[in-house]
Amino acid sequence: MSRVKLTTGSVCAAQGFRAAGVAVGIKPSGHLDVTLIASDRPAAVAAVFTTNRICAAPVQVSREHVRGGVARAIVVNAGNANACTGEQGLADAREMARFTAEVLSAEGDQIPPEQIVVCSTGIIGRPLPLAKVEAGVRDAAGVLSPTGSNRAARAIMTTDTRPKECAVHADLPSGQFSIGGICKGSGMIAPNMATMLAFLTTDADIDPKLLQTLLGRVADQTFNCVTVDGDTSTNDTLVVLANGASGVKILHGTDEFRAFKLGLNQVCRRLSRELARDGEGATKLVEVRIRGARTVSDARKAARTVANSPLVKTALFGNDPNWGRILCAVGYSGAQVDPNKVSLWVSGVQLVRDGTPVAFDVAAASAAMKVPKLLLEVNLGKGSRSASVWTCDLSYDYVRINAEYTT
Amino acid sequence: MSRVKLTTGSVCAAQGFRAAGVAVGIKPSGHLDVTLIASDRPAAVAAVFTTNRICAAPVQVSREHVRGGVARAIVVNAGNANACTGEQGLADAREMARFTAEVLSAEGDQIPPEQIVVCSTGIIGRPLPLAKVEAGVRDAAGVLSPTGSNRAARAIMTTDTRPKECAVHADLPSGQFSIGGICKGSGMIAPNMATMLAFLTTDADIDPKLLQTLLGRVADQTFNCVTVDGDTSTNDTLVVLANGASGVKILHGTDEFRAFKLGLNQVCRRLSRELARDGEGATKLVEVRIRGARTVSDARKAARTVANSPLVKTALFGNDPNWGRILCAVGYSGAQVDPNKVSLWVSGVQLVRDGTPVAFDVAAASAAMKVPKLLLEVNLGKGSRSASVWTCDLSYDYVRINAEYTT
Repeated sequence: MSRVKLTTGSVCAAQGFRAAGVAVGIKPSGHLDVTLIASDRPAAVAAVFTTNRICAAPVQVSREHVRGGVARAIVVNAGNANACTGEQGLADAREMARFTAEVLSAEGDQIPPEQIVVCSTGIIGRPLPLAKVEAGVRDAAGVLSPTGSNRAARAIMTTDTRPKECAVHADLPSGQFSIGGICKGSGMIAPNMATMLAFLTTDADIDPKLLQTLLGRVADQTFNCVTVDGDTSTNDTLVVLANGASGVKILHGTDEFRAFKLGLNQVCRRLSRELARDGEGATKLVEVRIRGARTVSDARKAARTVANSPLVKTALFGNDPNWGRILCAVGYSGAQVDPNKVSLWVSGVQLVRDGTPVAFDVAAASAAMKVPKLLLEVNLGKGSRSASVWTCDLSYDYVRINAEYTT
Repeated sequence: MSRVKLTTGSVCAAQGFRAAGVAVGIKPSGHLDVTLIASDRPAAVAAVFTTNRICAAPVQVSREHVRGGVARAIVVNAGNANACTGEQGLADAREMARFTAEVLSAEGDQIPPEQIVVCSTGIIGRPLPLAKVEAGVRDAAGVLSPTGSNRAARAIMTTDTRPKECAVHADLPSGQFSIGGICKGSGMIAPNMATMLAFLTTDADIDPKLLQTLLGRVADQTFNCVTVDGDTSTNDTLVVLANGASGVKILHGTDEFRAFKLGLNQVCRRLSRELARDGEGATKLVEVRIRGARTVSDARKAARTVANSPLVKTALFGNDPNWGRILCAVGYSGAQVDPNKVSLWVSGVQLVRDGTPVAFDVAAASAAMKVPKLLLEVNLGKGSRSASVWTCDLSYDYVRINAEYTT
């Protein structure tokens, strides 16, 4: 019997990983802004990047590096996205990989720059302050620690209000392994590689190609089902490093494979929901669950459209059981829906049955919406497929944060 | 030489049309809420309706009626959308057409219910207060007047802050004709039949099939290029009545045809921009102009995506020249863009050239954004096609209006 358990662990839950977060003044606030996550041995690497056609320099460089299948470390700066920075931006991202490899090589092994995954997040269009980043990497390398995850999780934050980390521990007859991760939001969050940045580590032993296939599938069911504002960022990156330190081999079709897949899904699911819960200005986490769809693609389309509708999101903020706006969004989503069979529930209370409203107590329904986690369910009356998307409400604070966040 | 001139006219600018707006208590505020627009003779009719799969009962009924090609009047109630109201809603919409035809028949002609276009706007999912609507129609019929346009324009408003009306007058060797119109927004406004309700009248003499073809094309270039919040309503309707009272015949390919098309475009263009300018909570009208696109479809896709991005819209509200968010939206729009050739201007000031930022004075650029009408231009560097979309910013007031607007 294999057991896979979600724990309060971190990006250092897996053996052989250390992390650090330091402050070098890239963020004007003086908060932590350079992160290093390192494996004590070469690790298999897989990653999913933004689908935005205008993607940041570090995304272009990391995409190349990940193709090699092996990585030793992830280096991240917050406060500057190194996006829309032209040839200089590309050169800066390569230089960031080079000096990180050099600093880590000082510990013993000779590490090539191609084994460094480079990430940036923050303001678009400003030259990367390379000297600061290098100073940060040197500081961080000096304090790398198996207990550094929380500082690493805080150093990748931009408008996030709290760090996001979690881990799973798998216990199998053949051995034990862990998968841990950190991520950050919290604006420019939309499907098609939803997260801005997420970093996972595991001590399982897995081939990079198998890891990539699994990561793509899991991302599709987790990070790609989250939206804060429908804006797909230029920098979105999800990376997993697998260093094999546990000695547990993950081969396709085995119990170990099933446990690994389940664990990866659990970590990504938890982290991605934390993104939505901490969306800019969010007062609640909202699951939009579509049932009765003709296809899964239809179900996702409808769920995403409801989740991105400004009218639905403001009604959620106002605790207004305005089911008309939800049905309206379903109607223009492009998904097939039977207007005479569609049904709708908010927090488990049915408001629409077969296309017409059910009498309900508005005050009670509104009171039932004042919860930190809310469920909207719609049955399209067209089939048996379903899908969920996680999102948050649209509040005054979203406007405040984004009208004041300066270029 | 033909002359087509935009005037301050109204839905009664064309000969033979009268209008009225009355208050019967459907809106809790006690404001005007029933509108009647009538032609003194049978008129050719054409219309464009919402593409939302969940469409309101009056849309279903009017779609049938317009197929006949002839109409005598448009009847509208605000305060209740008669959407998601099932079989009863359909019966109510038919009854609304029936009693309107009956009331207007009392003036002389025998008018069949199929010659009445029925529209509703307001709350979704509540039964139509049919007795009130009927009382309103009787009151309105009693005060129909060639000077009733402004009251009619006010009676169709919901969250609009002002009535929207305009007209053109065409002067040709063969005679003179007018086209006038009114419309209302101002939430649930998005491409694919953008306006919630727009009513045009003309005294030109035109075949309903030709009128329908022209209206579809003009709507595509005007109302369908407007977005407030990306939400396509269940009730969107654009109707034009042409009663021929001017005696000017509009035949394909003639000077009259060109003047009519130009005039129709001007009225729709003006009215649709007024929709965006008066979008919920809007502080400014924004034109997103995309140039250098491979296809017109790409240009529209990019323009709509920028116009709907919450991050762009909040930056516009904050007068923040945050070009990074604009390029980010272009990047995920699906339109082809060359990241090394893309250029961007805000209020005529170039902020990005060939994919990299141009040094600019942030304070001056921000000051230049504090205008009632703002232009964002992006050159995608992929071709020679262009398109514009009109929108507004996203302010605290959008959230206030929609978090407080109760079911």
